Amino acid sequence: MHDVIIIGGGPAGLTAGLYSGRANLKTLIIEKKALGGQAATTYNIENYPGYISIAGPDLTMKMEEQVKRYNVEITYGEITSVDLNSNPKKIVVGNKEYETKVVILAMGAYPREIGLESEQKLRGMGVSYCATCDGAFFNGRTVAVVGGGNTAIEDATFLTRYAEKVYVIHRRNELRATKAEQDKAFKNPKIEFIWDSVVEEIKGNEFVEGAVIKNVKTGEKKELKLDGIFVAIGNVPDTEFVKGIINLDENGYILGDEEMRTNIPGVFAAGDVRKKSVRQLVTAMSDGAIAAINAEKYLSE
Amino acid sequence: MHDVIIIGGGPAGLTAGLYSGRANLKTLIIEKKALGGQAATTYNIENYPGYISIAGPDLTMKMEEQVKRYNVEITYGEITSVDLNSNPKKIVVGNKEYETKVVILAMGAYPREIGLESEQKLRGMGVSYCATCDGAFFNGRTVAVVGGGNTAIEDATFLTRYAEKVYVIHRRNELRATKAEQDKAFKNPKIEFIWDSVVEEIKGNEFVEGAVIKNVKTGEKKELKLDGIFVAIGNVPDTEFVKGIINLDENGYILGDEEMRTNIPGVFAAGDVRKKSVRQLVTAMSDGAIAAINAEKYLSE
Repeated sequence: MHDVIIIGGGPAGLTAGLYSGRANLKTLIIEKKALGGQAATTYNIENYPGYISIAGPDLTMKMEEQVKRYNVEITYGEITSVDLNSNPKKIVVGNKEYETKVVILAMGAYPREIGLESEQKLRGMGVSYCATCDGAFFNGRTVAVVGGGNTAIEDATFLTRYAEKVYVIHRRNELRATKAEQDKAFKNPKIEFIWDSVVEEIKGNEFVEGAVIKNVKTGEKKELKLDGIFVAIGNVPDTEFVKGIINLDENGYILGDEEMRTNIPGVFAAGDVRKKSVRQLVTAMSDGAIAAINAEKYLSE
Repeated sequence: MHDVIIIGGGPAGLTAGLYSGRANLKTLIIEKKALGGQAATTYNIENYPGYISIAGPDLTMKMEEQVKRYNVEITYGEITSVDLNSNPKKIVVGNKEYETKVVILAMGAYPREIGLESEQKLRGMGVSYCATCDGAFFNGRTVAVVGGGNTAIEDATFLTRYAEKVYVIHRRNELRATKAEQDKAFKNPKIEFIWDSVVEEIKGNEFVEGAVIKNVKTGEKKELKLDGIFVAIGNVPDTEFVKGIINLDENGYILGDEEMRTNIPGVFAAGDVRKKSVRQLVTAMSDGAIAAINAEKYLSE
């Protein structure tokens, strides 16, 4: 029987683990894939206070070492089912069932897809959702980034390290990215913006060869020759397994309060999986700390 | 004319500066004493994700270097007056007036006093509000910590590095500190707890010599021989100069929302100065990031 089970080992989950472990609570983190969440796939983090610059995997390793000092257990596997209303609460991972007094939901969010058949077909064959993971495969090639937010523009700038040419395909005529990121991208001679446009089809048999782009204002279509497409049009929270149990908003994000409480006593939510306006590394960590501190209060009541 | 003036250079203010500077906003941080706030006077920080252990001053120096990379100006001085309703807003520091479009209030909080005349008289002469600053003066001596929260108990443990004996004087019969901190203190043979008790008077002419302790349940008084007293009974927000301008709670903390907005458009509040339930390094930083991101949105509207 655990005191606290944290679902998700990204920055929110690891920080919750750090605080929970330091509070001498018997703590388990269940991670689906790899620790560090989206931060772990970030090439270079420059907005984390205290590190002028740090690679995502390095920060993740430090956090892993840190939580292990406080005897926090980490296990890997996908959640099969949960019973959050029972006492103790139950978390099933494959054929293993865990019991716990408190659950902290910190599953984060995963990249949103364009929704094309050709996108599915060529996924991993030139269609990518992670520039920092796959950028290096496109040395000297031509790629496109789809999107206009921070991630898209950061990705475009990052991809110019490898690619000869980077198109940014955005369905609006202005970016949502911060001014700093915009300025950097506008100044970069390798980046070309294609405004008011969406990807209608990704071309290629075994590997991406191009894309059909449609201007949403004029209806005009054109074909771009491409070697890769990076999709960066936002994220979807990983909350399927708590649907109907935990209150979610229309996009699937968990509705909680500033104390990280959900609609079920003893179940907290922290990080990108929550409905909130700012999703940064440090805000996810803050959520994790608050969730664990309130978990400890809940347990001592 | 600045885009953003941040009042206070603690973790919240420095993080707001980092985000504001990265957004290419003309940013000034005004600090009263020394950068880093309460974190800078913390000997050893072990709950900051990404550093297994870091000294407060080291973290502060790293953050200072980091904000300076983004051309954030830092100036030192005490606020004389502010005009937050004017356009532009005005901040007066001595005989210097600054104009700015946005203000981020990040003044933090300062230690609460017991409220004794003898406390005032012997301040700096054995009465201290910062164990990590002054602990080393009490090598081989006997000291008392007043309080029962996290800071008090951390201070008591820390002071055993130097002092031969550390009393913890607490007006209740249980601690508010986290279990981890309690366990550590209870196991430490140098620490003795005096429950249900308050300090009625601090004894000494030129330097602390002892204290009169009163048991609040029995009314019984006794005198302790002491060389130093560390007061750790909470903090008071540094909000005098915005009283009547910015909405405060009954303890002087700024009332804001999750987006760090105050009652005046273009004025944000971040960190310990806000009314909130959890005050940690990482939660103050998160506030700073959110305040700066929302400041940028406010400016681009």
